[in-house]
Amino acid sequence: MKRVNRPSRLIALLTDFGSQDAFVGTMKGVILKINPQARIVDLAHDIAPQDVNSAAYALWSSYRFFPEGTIFVAVVDPGVGSDRRILCAQGRRHLFLAPDNGLLKYLMADHEIQRVREVTNSEYFLPAVSSTFHGRDIFAPVAAYLSLGLNPEKLGKQVKTHQSGEEFVYLDEFRKGKAYGKVIYLDRFGNLITNLRISSGRTPRVKKLIVTIGKHVIKGLSKSYAEGSGRNPLALINSANLLEIGLKNGNAAQTMRMTVGEKVTVEFL
Amino acid sequence: MKRVNRPSRLIALLTDFGSQDAFVGTMKGVILKINPQARIVDLAHDIAPQDVNSAAYALWSSYRFFPEGTIFVAVVDPGVGSDRRILCAQGRRHLFLAPDNGLLKYLMADHEIQRVREVTNSEYFLPAVSSTFHGRDIFAPVAAYLSLGLNPEKLGKQVKTHQSGEEFVYLDEFRKGKAYGKVIYLDRFGNLITNLRISSGRTPRVKKLIVTIGKHVIKGLSKSYAEGSGRNPLALINSANLLEIGLKNGNAAQTMRMTVGEKVTVEFL
Amino acid sequence: MKRVNRPSRLIALLTDFGSQDAFVGTMKGVILKINPQARIVDLAHDIAPQDVNSAAYALWSSYRFFPEGTIFVAVVDPGVGSDRRILCAQGRRHLFLAPDNGLLKYLMADHEIQRVREVTNSEYFLPAVSSTFHGRDIFAPVAAYLSLGLNPEKLGKQVKTHQSGEEFVYLDEFRKGKAYGKVIYLDRFGNLITNLRISSGRTPRVKKLIVTIGKHVIKGLSKSYAEGSGRNPLALINSANLLEIGLKNGNAAQTMRMTVGEKVTVEFL
Repeated sequence: MKRVNRPSRLIALLTDFGSQDAFVGTMKGVILKINPQARIVDLAHDIAPQDVNSAAYALWSSYRFFPEGTIFVAVVDPGVGSDRRILCAQGRRHLFLAPDNGLLKYLMADHEIQRVREVTNSEYFLPAVSSTFHGRDIFAPVAAYLSLGLNPEKLGKQVKTHQSGEEFVYLDEFRKGKAYGKVIYLDRFGNLITNLRISSGRTPRVKKLIVTIGKHVIKGLSKSYAEGSGRNPLALINSANLLEIGLKNGNAAQTMRMTVGEKVTVEFL
Repeated sequence: MKRVNRPSRLIALLTDFGSQDAFVGTMKGVILKINPQARIVDLAHDIAPQDVNSAAYALWSSYRFFPEGTIFVAVVDPGVGSDRRILCAQGRRHLFLAPDNGLLKYLMADHEIQRVREVTNSEYFLPAVSSTFHGRDIFAPVAAYLSLGLNPEKLGKQVKTHQSGEEFVYLDEFRKGKAYGKVIYLDRFGNLITNLRISSGRTPRVKKLIVTIGKHVIKGLSKSYAEGSGRNPLALINSANLLEIGLKNGNAAQTMRMTVGEKVTVEFL
Repeated sequence: MKRVNRPSRLIALLTDFGSQDAFVGTMKGVILKINPQARIVDLAHDIAPQDVNSAAYALWSSYRFFPEGTIFVAVVDPGVGSDRRILCAQGRRHLFLAPDNGLLKYLMADHEIQRVREVTNSEYFLPAVSSTFHGRDIFAPVAAYLSLGLNPEKLGKQVKTHQSGEEFVYLDEFRKGKAYGKVIYLDRFGNLITNLRISSGRTPRVKKLIVTIGKHVIKGLSKSYAEGSGRNPLALINSANLLEIGLKNGNAAQTMRMTVGEKVTVEFL
């Protein structure tokens, strides 16, 4: 018999469970009980409670850096125990398990998702499914079986999801006039990340634009946070190719008293 | 020679060390120095400093979901460096290392612990034992040797522990009258978890009871948080079969200004 | 062909990235894409944003407990995207990747670092290097290649670093008079850790000294936190052989309103 030494598929966990409780650890216990060789990576667990939008950003901004075949398990799930659906979405190189609540919206916007199934086959759930902890009772065991090679077809029927697909405004499509966007994410450093995007590989025209957020007017783009000076906010293209507003050695969100939803305008000169 | 490919026993770490300091990472370094193949899982590390009771709940609510043979290492240890004992407790399918400070009380209440030893054999400690970081100097190396197959008998003599064994009130033993309990744990979402318990597998009588906590009167049990409406607290049986009081999309503990110790009454109609 | 079953070198990650964002998870994705067998350990991620000094302490206080060959990746990097250098420092038994910003200063003080190279060879970086996330684009892939056996020579030329080498005051060199030090680190429990040090293996003269911090006068050293009484701060030699000021079951930093930089005097009687 041929001995295959291929490691099982990587499982990446994204939740709002924090590390105060045993929620995440329990999910790992369930996974390792089913697949003792499972390789598990924490993507992020301190997503603010029930903050589906931030989880969607965290997932979208990171998935492409993971090995082919990685199974992402995203459990930010205020609707747990209701009739909200659990999805298994097949991307081009990765697989995503998530509640059907918008967690996949940026992936949808990028046409990353090829096929979506509703996860209904309880054969791959824990025997007793609680109504408050599907991370443990459904997501974890399903991910474990997928990591062992289970075909996603076995999980349930193909469905459509209605998660939005128009999330970004592409700055490089503009030559003059104004682009209107908004803050969609705050990171732990207090940087304000917007939905204004540069196509991958494009170099933004650094000096010939003006960014306006609230009362703040920022002329031109910086290359890094270190270029900032004093208390003035700076704008740059971040590591996910999005326009980001930050403060050198400071917390822009706190200092500027701004948060998700704040309008941002870019004027091309 | 026979090649055994059995993975070494899983080690699950539960501490109040947070992730601001290198405490947890150092424990992992010590383990991996002794057993380079060790598989280590984080159970929870943001237990509030010295909060033995919450650690006891986190351990009890999760251990049964871990693979047979898992070694739980629980280090919430305000008495470190004093003459408090370190225990190695053998459960039916798992092993537990913990200070003798109450961390095992819910496991004792469930008659999960079969045998308890005091960990005294310094042969399995680091050569120099500090008086402030036994997680690194005693717990981690002992766990590593156990993961390699060390017989717990080698660690020290069998002892008795006096940790309490009456922690839960079983709701399904009631048909009428009142059951009196209390909040024993807050999770990160602000849910208030009580010591009022439903035997595994039982379905609670959903509508015919009234839960009282402070001024709040809750009629009947919900199935999930999503069933809640507006600002009224709801009660449900949580994923550990305990009565829990929560708030839809909100933080019950903060909103209701309640914490561990709060009395909870269930009246059966 | 000989089958080598040696595990690849351990990678330990130390950052100020927290677990609210996907930063750390993304670094792990990058590492596992290059070396699917990589073993990765989290050293600490909740270092305060841009707090290079605390990261330096976390690294110094823990590295010696890790397996020989461990690759430490320290990314607390306010100068990211500027012309600050990235270093690969070879210790006696470990390897360190860090920005040239002081992160290695305590290792330098201990003459732990044998050789330092500047990491410049972009062959081992991700194809596109952003100006804001070198953890993902440079540190992670370089660490992954090192874990596969890459010779550090390939990364870049040998350089000198100017990180300070005089960080500790050795208490056991004193017989009378006063030693002057300062608080250099706060841990999550609020303990105040100083740069006053006992040589490894030495037993400090417990009773014959007086520690002064602010208005507080502490007579003699305790052996453990449990020895403390009431609200009075205690002093002890911590698990890194440094003088530490703490409070039994309390948070010394908060209660005493003290932080890093506070002066500490030890008088020998």
